[in-house]
Amino acid sequence: MEKSGEFSASHFPADHARWPLSGNSDWFVPRGSPAEMEEGSELSPKFDPEGLVTCVATDAMSGEVLMLAHMNAEALIKTIATGEAWYFSRSRKMLWRKGESSGHVQRVVEMRVDCDQDAILIKVEQRGEGACHTGRRSCFYRAVPLGPKDHGPLALEFRQAERIFDPRAAYGDQKKR
Amino acid sequence: MEKSGEFSASHFPADHARWPLSGNSDWFVPRGSPAEMEEGSELSPKFDPEGLVTCVATDAMSGEVLMLAHMNAEALIKTIATGEAWYFSRSRKMLWRKGESSGHVQRVVEMRVDCDQDAILIKVEQRGEGACHTGRRSCFYRAVPLGPKDHGPLALEFRQAERIFDPRAAYGDQKKR
Repeated sequence: MEKSGEFSASHFPADHARWPLSGNSDWFVPRGSPAEMEEGSELSPKFDPEGLVTCVATDAMSGEVLMLAHMNAEALIKTIATGEAWYFSRSRKMLWRKGESSGHVQRVVEMRVDCDQDAILIKVEQRGEGACHTGRRSCFYRAVPLGPKDHGPLALEFRQAERIFDPRAAYGDQKKR
Repeated sequence: MEKSGEFSASHFPADHARWPLSGNSDWFVPRGSPAEMEEGSELSPKFDPEGLVTCVATDAMSGEVLMLAHMNAEALIKTIATGEAWYFSRSRKMLWRKGESSGHVQRVVEMRVDCDQDAILIKVEQRGEGACHTGRRSCFYRAVPLGPKDHGPLALEFRQAERIFDPRAAYGDQKKR
């Protein structure tokens, strides 16, 4: 396992050879053919041009989708190694341990990778009240009305949107962690 | 509802004013403050620099995560208007109606948007056998082993990975649709 301090919070390039991860640099293998990516048993994440894969986190018990975020190589390695969710914030351009300010840590029960290995699914035990920095259990608390409609903005409907914790108390000035 | 033919399959810019969607151009409102995005009842999708939002599709009955894909403005509008899932393929750079070649259409039972409106969740009734172009029910058929590990590639474990349809028969040469 990596020692803390071996990682910098810098944005990792998608180029494997340049990862400064001496202990973990061979966890991922280079990308191969589509068939190898889909049917192989080695992890070859397909990072986008920003060096990120998308990650969806669900509640391991209920299956509810809690949130969607991104991981760079470092976040993915840290999540695998520690069994706790780490993400990369696109807006703050930094590595982010879920719960580092709120205490709402996500313990990863199971991690899955999708067919072409550009998306990660983690089934988590959500510690603390909720995953969403707005104080809700899930980030997906508004429904979009479906069906044809002529003009004007769509009116979102709040569903399961009750606040279960006070985001100001949980996060203070450090939002979304 | 838009007439088919009003849309081109071109990649939509994130700039709302330039959308050639006469009938639907005011469905989305311009982005406001974080509080307005999080607590408002208007849809203001936060498209990335490529003009895309991420979309996770779950089985409306079981809650199982089926797949993760992307939508541009056109795909999002078509999905809302028709109640069937449309995506934008990043690799093929084109709009894509799920099931258009395989028949494995996704009827959208409910659509949700997340707190900062850069991700969409659709709960779908998956028509046909499965969502994954490899012949599986879900794209997430391999687990990543967790925990510290010194060296060497991680060995993925196949889970719920049985093929429930023949992808060659379903897709022919037109993959992933």
